[in-house]
Amino acid sequence: MKPFNVVIIGCGNVGGGTAKIIYSTPQELKQKAGGREIKIKQIITPHPRAAAKKYGLPLSLFCSSKTGLSKTECGNFIEAALKNPDVDLVVETVGGDTNYIHALHKNILKSGKHLVTANKAILAKHGYDIFDYAKKENKSVGYEAAVCGAIPLIKVVQDSFTGDLISKITGIVNGTSNFILSRMAAEGASFEDSLKLAQKLGYAELNPAMDIEGTDAANKLKILIQLIYGLSAAEQVFPVKGITHLSKQDFMVAKSLNSTIKHIALAIKAGNKIYACVQPAVIPNTDYLYGVSGATNAVKLNARYSGEHLFVGQGAGSSETGSAVVSDIVFIAKHGYIKDLKNAVTHAVHKLADYNDYPASYLLVIKTTDKPGVIGSVGTAIGDVNVNIENIAQSIISGPDWYLPVEVSKCTAKSLDAAIALIKKRRPKLIKDYKYIPILK
Amino acid sequence: MKPFNVVIIGCGNVGGGTAKIIYSTPQELKQKAGGREIKIKQIITPHPRAAAKKYGLPLSLFCSSKTGLSKTECGNFIEAALKNPDVDLVVETVGGDTNYIHALHKNILKSGKHLVTANKAILAKHGYDIFDYAKKENKSVGYEAAVCGAIPLIKVVQDSFTGDLISKITGIVNGTSNFILSRMAAEGASFEDSLKLAQKLGYAELNPAMDIEGTDAANKLKILIQLIYGLSAAEQVFPVKGITHLSKQDFMVAKSLNSTIKHIALAIKAGNKIYACVQPAVIPNTDYLYGVSGATNAVKLNARYSGEHLFVGQGAGSSETGSAVVSDIVFIAKHGYIKDLKNAVTHAVHKLADYNDYPASYLLVIKTTDKPGVIGSVGTAIGDVNVNIENIAQSIISGPDWYLPVEVSKCTAKSLDAAIALIKKRRPKLIKDYKYIPILK
Repeated sequence: MKPFNVVIIGCGNVGGGTAKIIYSTPQELKQKAGGREIKIKQIITPHPRAAAKKYGLPLSLFCSSKTGLSKTECGNFIEAALKNPDVDLVVETVGGDTNYIHALHKNILKSGKHLVTANKAILAKHGYDIFDYAKKENKSVGYEAAVCGAIPLIKVVQDSFTGDLISKITGIVNGTSNFILSRMAAEGASFEDSLKLAQKLGYAELNPAMDIEGTDAANKLKILIQLIYGLSAAEQVFPVKGITHLSKQDFMVAKSLNSTIKHIALAIKAGNKIYACVQPAVIPNTDYLYGVSGATNAVKLNARYSGEHLFVGQGAGSSETGSAVVSDIVFIAKHGYIKDLKNAVTHAVHKLADYNDYPASYLLVIKTTDKPGVIGSVGTAIGDVNVNIENIAQSIISGPDWYLPVEVSKCTAKSLDAAIALIKKRRPKLIKDYKYIPILK
Repeated sequence: MKPFNVVIIGCGNVGGGTAKIIYSTPQELKQKAGGREIKIKQIITPHPRAAAKKYGLPLSLFCSSKTGLSKTECGNFIEAALKNPDVDLVVETVGGDTNYIHALHKNILKSGKHLVTANKAILAKHGYDIFDYAKKENKSVGYEAAVCGAIPLIKVVQDSFTGDLISKITGIVNGTSNFILSRMAAEGASFEDSLKLAQKLGYAELNPAMDIEGTDAANKLKILIQLIYGLSAAEQVFPVKGITHLSKQDFMVAKSLNSTIKHIALAIKAGNKIYACVQPAVIPNTDYLYGVSGATNAVKLNARYSGEHLFVGQGAGSSETGSAVVSDIVFIAKHGYIKDLKNAVTHAVHKLADYNDYPASYLLVIKTTDKPGVIGSVGTAIGDVNVNIENIAQSIISGPDWYLPVEVSKCTAKSLDAAIALIKKRRPKLIKDYKYIPILK
């Protein structure tokens, strides 16, 4: 049987890990692909020598033995690879959501090659466009590595949850944020110190905005919503909050309630509405997600027939993400294609709704000074907007400030805004600051 | 497109759940199967009326509208179904590892129908035989529901771990045992009382032997080893211990070490050897499996490239297990077949080794009377067999008895046997009873 020939564009973290696995385990992959050899035809990268050394790969696998290639030279190698009828599949691990990458994806499919990518940013922008294109060309797009690295979430949704209807997605999908929040929870460290440590240890990039502001998590959630509920990226506008506003005191408050705070990507199906958001949430210690610490990713899926599922694994890393890319390559080599990219588990027509209208339990934390009547004023205002209080705990004292934790029963964020407005109107000096965070129940 | 016609044999817990999902979600399943309708052609069961009522199914789906059918009548309906060229797939949910079922599986495949089953007992006995048969007939065997119910473990191994090499399987795979042990841990209840409660609540059968003696867990482990390491059922002989010998005091000791005890199915790859066992193990509270309580199942997979994975979900239940059966049906309807049943992730040639030769950390619990010199005698004997002690904790006192917990570093069960023999020889009255349990680290 002719080998299944793979060209890898980009040889950084993911491309290098992918190449290393294919190069190191030829017999195993052949067996898993139903007897067909998986072969690296070529690796195209601007710095072949450095990449070969870093990932322990023979230079002969690369497009050139030069130290550095110009953009034009790389472009020519890509063009030649796409013209080569021997090439079956192209892996794109360059990253970014530029027009250049979008065009590259289309050209790969147009040239009759399957596409495998770990590029979440572009799939969260042009996913359906590229899936439509693949369908037209009768080719596959594998993107297992784009969502939560090594966790086999995409294939599980495409092929294992087919006998069920997913009603809720709750995920810790960004390892950088989770590392930082785990530090804040365990060590009582500040956000700034935890971020610095994450950068020092390589868990956060020098420009960590995509991670700590929630953009990366939002991209992954968009891809899952696209796959599970059939809403295109363009239809998906939902609230995205990062973790930069979280303080030591928030964790002290959460701890006093036997809980912690995690950065969560959430989508809830209620009727034909999908309520989605990315934001910090309070996680009680009875929830599996409570114990997911460090750079680990975890996703909980709730389904109508099979109940609650939890998937935990490594969301990043060279060989971890590489293993997910390779699993896509093997699947396509073995089965010929990944069927029905767009309609895998789309049920009926869904609409995205504003999460701020979704009735959730909330933890409201009011920074105040401890004067008589505070609890009364807060309690009255919350009652006046028809929200029930489950618990007002003792204030947490931190320096000169008092933090009053109020747990409220299911209500919308909008009604909490109304309660805050009432308190401010009635006692203008009571609230020095406030914050509300949904409680996962 | 012609519908994908399914015959279901057996309409108990699993068959009923399967039929209900197919009957209730025709549009969703059609979409997931790439546009092909999944249709129940017939349900064959000895008690059609009772089953129709119990699972809310129209009697017209059944082979007969009678109250009761004889064995011969059922057999005739099965024979007719297998002869019907319109039938694409047969689901067997009768259960049991009899020759009758083995012959039925072969006849289904021989008649040119795909087979889907939740029958773990027979796959743990004749798995390879039936896979070989399927290959010869160019048909599929779907058995997602046979291992851990709704957890999509089989397909994950078949199609998602193809870019990796699994080095360790650690599973809580029997919900009945886990329910009983969770009660013992949380309530300090005895084994007998916890079993009675499990029976009362429907988590344990009246004859619970398969569950509490480890047979059911061993069957699931055999199927996983078959799939992952390519060892046929006949080659798999490994130690199987149940939970009936565990006492309140064992849980008191475990608790004093910030741990609990769970019933574990374990397979570890070391070189080309596979060390397997089913037995209780000590789980520290830092391990994800520590928090898996009640009837829930959980499996941890460690892999060379992608590190540690955890899968948690419902291991039993009518609609839960039914959803796994339906996912197999949809996969086959969509992809045409499940490829390479036998060689999915088989790497090289593996041999099963005796787990008692595997160096594990152990918790040794010695029931004794507190006399001076006990710790010295125990410590000396363990040192004399070249085993290191990590910790001898304070004795747990329960009634007139003292339980001395000794944590030892990695050693074989055989060397602990030798240490116990030494103590017994030197101080015949010191040990009133003893037990050692591997510690998962």
